[in-house]
Amino acid sequence: MIKNCSRIGCSDSDVIKQVDELNANSDVHGILVQLPLPKHINEEKVLTGIRIEKDVDGFHPLNIGKLAMKGGEPLFLPCTPKDCLELLSRSGISIKGKKAVVVGRSNIVGLPVSLLLLKANATVTTVHSCTSDPESIIREADIIIAAAGQPMMIKGSWIKPGAAVIDVGTNAVDDPSRKTGYRLVGDVDFEEVSKRAGWIYPVPGGVGPMTVAMLLKNTLESAKCSLDRQNLWGLS
Amino acid sequence: MIKNCSRIGCSDSDVIKQVDELNANSDVHGILVQLPLPKHINEEKVLTGIRIEKDVDGFHPLNIGKLAMKGGEPLFLPCTPKDCLELLSRSGISIKGKKAVVVGRSNIVGLPVSLLLLKANATVTTVHSCTSDPESIIREADIIIAAAGQPMMIKGSWIKPGAAVIDVGTNAVDDPSRKTGYRLVGDVDFEEVSKRAGWIYPVPGGVGPMTVAMLLKNTLESAKCSLDRQNLWGLS
Repeated sequence: MIKNCSRIGCSDSDVIKQVDELNANSDVHGILVQLPLPKHINEEKVLTGIRIEKDVDGFHPLNIGKLAMKGGEPLFLPCTPKDCLELLSRSGISIKGKKAVVVGRSNIVGLPVSLLLLKANATVTTVHSCTSDPESIIREADIIIAAAGQPMMIKGSWIKPGAAVIDVGTNAVDDPSRKTGYRLVGDVDFEEVSKRAGWIYPVPGGVGPMTVAMLLKNTLESAKCSLDRQNLWGLS
Repeated sequence: MIKNCSRIGCSDSDVIKQVDELNANSDVHGILVQLPLPKHINEEKVLTGIRIEKDVDGFHPLNIGKLAMKGGEPLFLPCTPKDCLELLSRSGISIKGKKAVVVGRSNIVGLPVSLLLLKANATVTTVHSCTSDPESIIREADIIIAAAGQPMMIKGSWIKPGAAVIDVGTNAVDDPSRKTGYRLVGDVDFEEVSKRAGWIYPVPGGVGPMTVAMLLKNTLESAKCSLDRQNLWGLS
């Protein structure tokens, strides 16, 4: 079910009221707030309002805190960061002891994927808009996660031969040759980088479909837990 | 007031019961669980049990989540990480755009100080026990936070001339010349490192006393907030 709070003049409390209704609805097992929210809405307040058992996006601060902390066990992992680790694992790429560079530090991808890689024992550097020479840092990396939202910023010469490159950027660039007038590109210059990387996951087609799968997986887990709780308490 | 749950056989629920009593006591404005807890006690469960308004140590996963997230506003910052930023600030060292290396990733220091430095716009690398060549990474750093618990592991030759070095390690090493038979040293080889560093905060004497001050500051803030709430609700 989709609740639309995008109308002008919609306030924090309007959104939180919708979230509360979904929290109380036992037929709903997962709540996803489509981010980013308009600037006048307090994102932290809205996300904190989601019942932790229904936070299938994994963006509740309590889930992020548990994700960050050693020994912490979040109920749900954020989907795109979870994908990145799944892609590495399914490609047989070990993480432990590797140098990983995450480009970007958003709450949705950059930050949680840095935390997950650290938990998986990589040596993690997070570069961002204030980093003076990202190129020299990326050149050292065995694993690169590009999540800066800057079309094709990462060039072939920045890549250590054999590195694994996961592109999470999704940017629309003008393309008059297309009917739509634009095409989607990632943060990585695929043509150049694919010549040096050992593994590369492109945009579109790489992480995107995986994210949807992970979201459904989290929602299914949530529904199962809900049924378990009902059985435990003898509820129908 | 100190509650002692260190006896053998003390269970999760014993500790949580004590925390609950302190949560309910309106004369108590701050609760500090002395970490690390014995291995059989679930640290996450105990920390999550502390009322967020009394979490003056800042270790509740909700506080850590808000600390990690862009735009997040934790009620309290963990004391030692907060010290490190305060020491840099009072020494006139700017953080934005600097390369910072945090040695160690504990929940108490390494992890939260990495997150704070990232929020302050440093380019942060976290090195730890699985990092294959920490020396080469530390050599690039403008700011080094040593919190690995390894006596004098960081040598003078590892330091970029002029770097700021904050030593958070506190290690007891044998010293027959002392009455006690031991002395406290940090993670940094002070004699060597002080010759190359631009700023150095030693052990003992550097961060330690600051941590106690920050804890009292957080507790005072908590007491003030508690009074504000009482006034707001018209309670005596």
